[in-house]
Amino acid sequence: MTMTVAQADSLIVDGVELPSRLIMGTGGLSSFDTLRDALVASGTSLTTVALRRYAPGEASLFGLLTELGIKVLPNTAGCFTAREAVLTAELGREALETDWVKLEVIADETTLLPDTAELFEATEQLVQRGFKVFAYTNDDPVAALRLQDLGAVAVMPLGAPIGTGLGILNPHNIELIVSRATVPVVLDAGIGTASEATLAMELGCDAVLLATAVTRAHDPERMARAFRLAVEAGYLARRGGRIPRRALARASSPMAGRADL
Amino acid sequence: MTMTVAQADSLIVDGVELPSRLIMGTGGLSSFDTLRDALVASGTSLTTVALRRYAPGEASLFGLLTELGIKVLPNTAGCFTAREAVLTAELGREALETDWVKLEVIADETTLLPDTAELFEATEQLVQRGFKVFAYTNDDPVAALRLQDLGAVAVMPLGAPIGTGLGILNPHNIELIVSRATVPVVLDAGIGTASEATLAMELGCDAVLLATAVTRAHDPERMARAFRLAVEAGYLARRGGRIPRRALARASSPMAGRADL
Amino acid sequence: MTMTVAQADSLIVDGVELPSRLIMGTGGLSSFDTLRDALVASGTSLTTVALRRYAPGEASLFGLLTELGIKVLPNTAGCFTAREAVLTAELGREALETDWVKLEVIADETTLLPDTAELFEATEQLVQRGFKVFAYTNDDPVAALRLQDLGAVAVMPLGAPIGTGLGILNPHNIELIVSRATVPVVLDAGIGTASEATLAMELGCDAVLLATAVTRAHDPERMARAFRLAVEAGYLARRGGRIPRRALARASSPMAGRADL
Amino acid sequence: MTMTVAQADSLIVDGVELPSRLIMGTGGLSSFDTLRDALVASGTSLTTVALRRYAPGEASLFGLLTELGIKVLPNTAGCFTAREAVLTAELGREALETDWVKLEVIADETTLLPDTAELFEATEQLVQRGFKVFAYTNDDPVAALRLQDLGAVAVMPLGAPIGTGLGILNPHNIELIVSRATVPVVLDAGIGTASEATLAMELGCDAVLLATAVTRAHDPERMARAFRLAVEAGYLARRGGRIPRRALARASSPMAGRADL
Repeated sequence: MTMTVAQADSLIVDGVELPSRLIMGTGGLSSFDTLRDALVASGTSLTTVALRRYAPGEASLFGLLTELGIKVLPNTAGCFTAREAVLTAELGREALETDWVKLEVIADETTLLPDTAELFEATEQLVQRGFKVFAYTNDDPVAALRLQDLGAVAVMPLGAPIGTGLGILNPHNIELIVSRATVPVVLDAGIGTASEATLAMELGCDAVLLATAVTRAHDPERMARAFRLAVEAGYLARRGGRIPRRALARASSPMAGRADL
Repeated sequence: MTMTVAQADSLIVDGVELPSRLIMGTGGLSSFDTLRDALVASGTSLTTVALRRYAPGEASLFGLLTELGIKVLPNTAGCFTAREAVLTAELGREALETDWVKLEVIADETTLLPDTAELFEATEQLVQRGFKVFAYTNDDPVAALRLQDLGAVAVMPLGAPIGTGLGILNPHNIELIVSRATVPVVLDAGIGTASEATLAMELGCDAVLLATAVTRAHDPERMARAFRLAVEAGYLARRGGRIPRRALARASSPMAGRADL
Repeated sequence: MTMTVAQADSLIVDGVELPSRLIMGTGGLSSFDTLRDALVASGTSLTTVALRRYAPGEASLFGLLTELGIKVLPNTAGCFTAREAVLTAELGREALETDWVKLEVIADETTLLPDTAELFEATEQLVQRGFKVFAYTNDDPVAALRLQDLGAVAVMPLGAPIGTGLGILNPHNIELIVSRATVPVVLDAGIGTASEATLAMELGCDAVLLATAVTRAHDPERMARAFRLAVEAGYLARRGGRIPRRALARASSPMAGRADL
Repeated sequence: MTMTVAQADSLIVDGVELPSRLIMGTGGLSSFDTLRDALVASGTSLTTVALRRYAPGEASLFGLLTELGIKVLPNTAGCFTAREAVLTAELGREALETDWVKLEVIADETTLLPDTAELFEATEQLVQRGFKVFAYTNDDPVAALRLQDLGAVAVMPLGAPIGTGLGILNPHNIELIVSRATVPVVLDAGIGTASEATLAMELGCDAVLLATAVTRAHDPERMARAFRLAVEAGYLARRGGRIPRRALARASSPMAGRADL
């Protein structure tokens, strides 16, 4: 298998080159060894870490990420207001020495859906404070553009609510977002299996972020490898220029020239 | 990228081991060099060749396949009756020295849909004559089982009519076929882009066969590579054990333990 | 509500005019009164009765149908071979004095899917014996045309396997059948709820047949009424000429002339 | 056909009883007579009128609505900001003597998608000024709840962008909104044909609003009648309690008792 990650163009966010277009979450795996295996198999270059769940004992996690050359993207998971998110981001910047932050502000614990009003406010404040905001949002094209206009370096629409594994519920919205965004678009949340990650890339997303689909899979390492290939397949297919859909059949070669019997 | 084809179990059909689970058609490409590049990029181990379109000038095609170590699967494309298909298969066996045949018997030129009544008859005759039949069929689970019972070494249900690029129109039927077949199931026809090949494998198919989706793509080589990865991603995802679909959200780590602000 | 059934053109099958385009099955309801209420609410003109389940005690069923002016369509449910089906049809003709028969020949008890090979044979024999065959089949356009060519007076493709309530799994096939059939096409089996019956008619079907969706509903009478309206809505919508699907929005009135503020 | 609108419970909004659950827009029809016929055929009790397109010549429209006993719901179509929408609503209240207003604040002319930030602000102001706000919004469950909390008397999520006829792109979101809202939920925008209106009601919506699907149909009167029946069918089906979806088939009556042959 001669295909390598380097053959696909790297993802550039905030001027930084990321060889892999698969971004991984780290939550949900009980075993440190399983996490390491899954991260390696995924080929990821960037991994989110929940700041509000960051504990001294997790120092080893950062050691692992450093060892594997994986960049850290702290997130504000568990925040319900702009105020909480900004505070969390500030604590994270101090602890982890990065101004990158994945901004999550959710509306409630039942749906874990983003609260766009709070998102807009938090994005505005974080940008003013010098953060590079990766904004996790719903699939509303208007909200995605607003976040970009407010200075987000990447917009991250959901495919479906977090942890549902329902895939991309509204591909039309994702296409609208991709067609209008100038910053990278990362499909974030809802992915359950490899074909959905491939589809996300075919729709034109620049990367895919997932956690549960790997960490809660029966075999996280194998699933991580599946997603690595799936994302690359979708990236290539988008650029390979798929055939148009047709209502009627078409033979792969003309019938006319066929041999008589 | 350390992932290699060898890491995935090979496909075994008729006792023969095929390292790749992507089967390629060769029709539709005007340039011989483009075909070579696409075949190499696809990583395929098995390629269909239309017997009724086989011409002396195509000797170079067989040279190429031999050079690349790709096995030939002659097909009976363009046949409308069992009689035509059996004659075509016999001519192919003589010319190509293989008893493998992809059996295609279509009902009409508008839909190119398989004619199952003729298929059954042709399968019966070909098996009696010592052929190893790879039966291209519709997605009817009853027809697929019948073909297996008649001695087909692989059943090849369509996802959608040939050349339409409509993907897998009825995943439920494909799942039924997979759950009941004991011979390999190959998703054949209708595939337009990578995510659909991944889905086919996630549904439990053993391999994917496609032609137009590569040969008529804007960039056949890149698309061939996309499909190679897509098929492998789907194979791994099926075995990785995807998370169940849930109606409601679920956080990747518990909310309970989060830090106070 | 001034809309009446008479406003929609009647369905003509075998030269007989049926005012309603909803055909009902009678199996599955324990209470006779509930069945009566459901039949009345459905507005049906034609009802299937399983010959192999017909028992002397069911005399009252035929009394009810006569009283309500509902025509009887005997079916061969429970038959696995052409031979069984033909025998069953003959017994039915004698008992019920009608040469109409809904031909069902299923392949196995797990999927209840039609066995097309047996169907073709049974249709041929029944037509020769003077029956008017309403052929229950899968959604394969080739099989549907074959049944028509063999003399069926109506072809009845499934939406999904019997009793699953999965709706119309492959609308593309149903559209292909409709576009090529010259006899009435009846969507039969798989329907679970009203919108699916509406969709069947929008796809161009001439009628919808269902049983379980009413008889096993929480409130069979209400559901029967829902399906009555649903079928008529779909029939009208097909003829009303729906707007084309568009990728981008379009205001219902021009923006240009709007008032200044 | 004995089914009448009165058999279905009326829709109650803001304490007002509306016999029909189909709300019609009036834009897009060139002929006054065609509009009259479509309104009658729809059976609607409530019709939106674009305030910013209201012109003296349209006096006849209001005459018609009065004559038909159809209530007027002025809308703020064509407004891009909360300020514009509030001004428009005030002008409408004065002209039409109703405090009902369908609030539309769109983000741009390409997508016509709602701008939720402006919507929230406009809703707050309009409620303070004594308006009864019917809020047209995207399908974000968080935005829908926010609008309800701000005092909207009805929330009106879109199925798809205005005028696209793409149907309900994300049924999961509509179900989430229905499960959490306490005010009526009206599916607004995107509907192209009858089955989609039926589906909206089956998902639990309290009503459906559409314009283009009727006014731009080939035969607006027939399509209006189709939607009338479709909405009622969906309402009944929701309450009739559909059968569960099953992966495997289930006969409508037991096979066990069938007659021997």
